[in-house]
Amino acid sequence: MNSREDLERWETLAANKNWRTLASDLADSNEIDIAEFLETLDKEVLVLVFRIIPKDMAAEVFANLPPESQQIIIESATDNELSLIIEELAVDDAVDMLDELPANVVTRVLRTAKPETRRLINQFLSYPDNSVGSIMTAEFMYLRKSMTVGSAIDFIRRTGDESEPLYTSFVIDNHRKLLGVVTLKELLISDDSVVIENLMETDVIYAHTEDDQEEASKTLKKYGLLSLPVVDREDRLVGIVTVDDVMDVMEEEATEDFEKMAAMLPSEKPYLKTSPLVLAKNRIVWLLVLMVSGMVTGGILGRYENAFAAVPLLVTFIPLLTGTGGNAGSQSSTVIIRSMSVGELETKDFLKVLWKEFRVALLVGLGLAAVNFLRLLIQYPGQYAVALTVSLTLVGTVVLAKTIGGILPMLAKAVRLDPALMAAPLITTIVDALSLVLYFTIAQSLFGIV
Amino acid sequence: MNSREDLERWETLAANKNWRTLASDLADSNEIDIAEFLETLDKEVLVLVFRIIPKDMAAEVFANLPPESQQIIIESATDNELSLIIEELAVDDAVDMLDELPANVVTRVLRTAKPETRRLINQFLSYPDNSVGSIMTAEFMYLRKSMTVGSAIDFIRRTGDESEPLYTSFVIDNHRKLLGVVTLKELLISDDSVVIENLMETDVIYAHTEDDQEEASKTLKKYGLLSLPVVDREDRLVGIVTVDDVMDVMEEEATEDFEKMAAMLPSEKPYLKTSPLVLAKNRIVWLLVLMVSGMVTGGILGRYENAFAAVPLLVTFIPLLTGTGGNAGSQSSTVIIRSMSVGELETKDFLKVLWKEFRVALLVGLGLAAVNFLRLLIQYPGQYAVALTVSLTLVGTVVLAKTIGGILPMLAKAVRLDPALMAAPLITTIVDALSLVLYFTIAQSLFGIV
Repeated sequence: MNSREDLERWETLAANKNWRTLASDLADSNEIDIAEFLETLDKEVLVLVFRIIPKDMAAEVFANLPPESQQIIIESATDNELSLIIEELAVDDAVDMLDELPANVVTRVLRTAKPETRRLINQFLSYPDNSVGSIMTAEFMYLRKSMTVGSAIDFIRRTGDESEPLYTSFVIDNHRKLLGVVTLKELLISDDSVVIENLMETDVIYAHTEDDQEEASKTLKKYGLLSLPVVDREDRLVGIVTVDDVMDVMEEEATEDFEKMAAMLPSEKPYLKTSPLVLAKNRIVWLLVLMVSGMVTGGILGRYENAFAAVPLLVTFIPLLTGTGGNAGSQSSTVIIRSMSVGELETKDFLKVLWKEFRVALLVGLGLAAVNFLRLLIQYPGQYAVALTVSLTLVGTVVLAKTIGGILPMLAKAVRLDPALMAAPLITTIVDALSLVLYFTIAQSLFGIV
Repeated sequence: MNSREDLERWETLAANKNWRTLASDLADSNEIDIAEFLETLDKEVLVLVFRIIPKDMAAEVFANLPPESQQIIIESATDNELSLIIEELAVDDAVDMLDELPANVVTRVLRTAKPETRRLINQFLSYPDNSVGSIMTAEFMYLRKSMTVGSAIDFIRRTGDESEPLYTSFVIDNHRKLLGVVTLKELLISDDSVVIENLMETDVIYAHTEDDQEEASKTLKKYGLLSLPVVDREDRLVGIVTVDDVMDVMEEEATEDFEKMAAMLPSEKPYLKTSPLVLAKNRIVWLLVLMVSGMVTGGILGRYENAFAAVPLLVTFIPLLTGTGGNAGSQSSTVIIRSMSVGELETKDFLKVLWKEFRVALLVGLGLAAVNFLRLLIQYPGQYAVALTVSLTLVGTVVLAKTIGGILPMLAKAVRLDPALMAAPLITTIVDALSLVLYFTIAQSLFGIV
């Protein structure tokens, strides 16, 4: 794991135009490290270095490059070179690449591809974003139920190649209908003479092309599979989702949740590659929405002008109350959203959550109120009404915040909205308004203000 | 994927005491679904049903049960039955189980284990939490460099068993030192006569037992491996981290980030299994800290009592300003924290982030201020000073919020603090105070209040 040192050595070799040493160095290295190195190079050097990578590594290196670097290479490649790359790429990698390239480059790439490859790529490009079809791999290993273990192993040894995940084999009939699944491990530890039909698992766990990628990821993870078969509407096996795809989905979905929960539209590209204008656009939408509700809260506050004109001290506790309410509410909504997203909570647990959040809120609220009551009595001796108003409001605010923060994401899920939208920012805004009404209502009655 | 229907059928069979049908049904099912079913059963029924599961599935079912159910089974098992379960379990599953059990049960379990198993378990129990050692699997497949591909495949077929991940074989010398790695795929698609030494990859990617589990996960994910070898301080191969372990780590680490970013101490157990008291304790710590900073903000606000006594209308814009500032800041901190955690950003990108956030903030701030200025002129015709004060503060607040939200997590990482602590709640509190100072400073100068 000295990829950082490798990178520096290669950079020096490239800077010194020591291509021969660099070529032999790269030939002994990992494709992912090489791709990382290529990313750092200038356009001309990138094209040059890509050419000295051994042919059998080039496609894998290419698949691991960011779209911008892929485009540079494509533009400098002859049709012949381009065709070689495309045919070597796994279909899902080719599709990922085409998704990011400008239309004219896509046309040229598809033109150089073989008809069968082109057909597959076009089919994959038609699956909706976030569907299982859009992440699946078209290459997989399949067997016939009449084979013996011995002939199956032979078959795998003869037909398996570098690019094909072959640790799980799928048993299909003449119409490509999925009959069963057998792992390479089961094959290897079984006797040569056993017939596949008797060895295969027929209770196959699978997904449909149009299923949500997140559901498929959860299934693969839950059952500890290395690949999940994907069937089309006619139940024909059309691809597999592998464990690497699932790790990418998990990371992507968590990132999307983080973004939504911080009131942003999900971004397509990594932060450093997104322009300030796109970032601003992704962020301003929700800020505008929340600003409007901030205006509503302001309007509510305006109705109590006589209260804070009479006791200006009351105003100084507003940040403490709304801040604590917001934080208490976002704690609850975060826990509930995350628990639902990893499958630990379901909408049927609604009442359990409500009851638990209520008890937690009471404990937390009373604790905070007690601390606050004491410090107010010390800071403003004799002003019991102020101390009482703030402390009572604190308990009420925390209870409101935590029950609302706990149940809103569950309600959202029940009506098929994304629970992650019911996160900190929205909860904070709602709780702000409620806690201020509570605060001034209590204040008016304790201070006798009308 | 009809596990929900299976579950209901099994529940009915158990309720009707139809053990024979249930037993044959379970024998054809998936261990993970069975474990899910057992979880729902009462103590006595659980013990009964566990006994009717086929012997070769029992350990796998047991490994997938929650600690409470495992304890019930252990307490009802004879020493002999217990020993069978323990020997069948993978060492890491056994360790996970022992970590959760009461001390007297642990003693009994260790007593019934064979000496070699006991030694391994004790060694695993000594690895620190979150270290690679604590998540690795002790069972792995190893080969000698002098073997041929043919004899290696034979060796794997003879010695591999159900519980062993055998898709990646490690080549070791007589002192268990790691020499190279060869995948089962490479073995299968190579000629029988090739010698392992000539086939193996010697530039092995590996981890140390004391490395952080998150680092190891990132490495496995980056290089698309199915397992990552783990060596001890003497460079001896002692275990492997598999792709399932890594998916668990990824999920766990993301959950921890969500919790920290919502100002909570990370929880040990799933939400529904955590008591309200523990939840309250995990949440109140940060709320207290943030309440203190809310008090500071209140103190700052107190210094402007004459301003809001003179123009009470000013008070009503406080929620809008602090709310927008908090949201704008947490957008930035969330993006930066997440980008660092998935490895897209490093501390060396500090200036890039600062410059990008500044530009985004200016765009967003000006946009929000423009909208707000217009609506204020409509809502309060002629009150230019109010509209200008609020709008100017809005621009300043967003710029402050986004730059602070962007750089604080990076500064935290630079001084080796957890960036996730510099998230929404803390950022909001800091921005609250700053935006109020800015607001009343602008107001005082525009309204001529002293």
